[in-house]
Amino acid sequence: MENIFTDEYFMKKALQEAETAFEKGEIPVGAIIVIDNKVIARSHNLTELLNDVTAHAEMQSITAAANFLGGKYLKDCTLYVTLEPCQMCAGALYWSQISKIVFGSRDEQRGFQTLGTKLHPKTQVNQGVLAQECGDLMKRFFAEKRK
Amino acid sequence: MENIFTDEYFMKKALQEAETAFEKGEIPVGAIIVIDNKVIARSHNLTELLNDVTAHAEMQSITAAANFLGGKYLKDCTLYVTLEPCQMCAGALYWSQISKIVFGSRDEQRGFQTLGTKLHPKTQVNQGVLAQECGDLMKRFFAEKRK
Repeated sequence: MENIFTDEYFMKKALQEAETAFEKGEIPVGAIIVIDNKVIARSHNLTELLNDVTAHAEMQSITAAANFLGGKYLKDCTLYVTLEPCQMCAGALYWSQISKIVFGSRDEQRGFQTLGTKLHPKTQVNQGVLAQECGDLMKRFFAEKRK
Repeated sequence: MENIFTDEYFMKKALQEAETAFEKGEIPVGAIIVIDNKVIARSHNLTELLNDVTAHAEMQSITAAANFLGGKYLKDCTLYVTLEPCQMCAGALYWSQISKIVFGSRDEQRGFQTLGTKLHPKTQVNQGVLAQECGDLMKRFFAEKRK
């Protein structure tokens, strides 16, 4: 039987969150956290609504997943996020010891890979999943902002 | 007239927060944020109590200060924190565009300076303020933990 629980499958759910952010006028980034193919956290960027630079999608999902699990380490968890995490979010993911990070489009300027943020040695990374769709949503957002 | 509002003056307040963390069994890091010599946020590490790796003292103070100011940028604000910020906190401070960061003792292993986290170009840094007192509290905490 075909495994439906692919990285693309879960990234689509993160993209739905990003679309919700878009509709609210937030920079459209969405994230979910999954354990054993079960979504235990879902969130989108809320920096404008909350007036809070720390309200990135990943940060909210880390807090929500830890709350769900009843412990602060996200062992055996995978984060799906539509945009490459920034220094802050990668730094939080470092502390969480999360098992896997999957992201969509790259953030060449402010992404953790460009800036050299250190992840936990236990953390695997898979990038470029639905990169086109994730990136297009960002481009559309900034194009509309400039109008 | 002598200016009582020195970096040492405010770092003592951050140290009081760190001591509160110590009493709760949390890694003893405290932070405050000041604007025009007025303390607008105070916090201490709560990662154990909240089961949340994002609950560092600095992160809570950034959120609280932005809430107080009604905007997410911490222009003209100074953060006082007893320990050198980590990647996550420095990354959050980058987004906040905070004017100044003053920290006490260095974190040689996980501090943002060692790991090369990028701060905002507008942000000044002053380090080593009450470094001995701040560092001693950390050492005492870990010595007791090992008992």
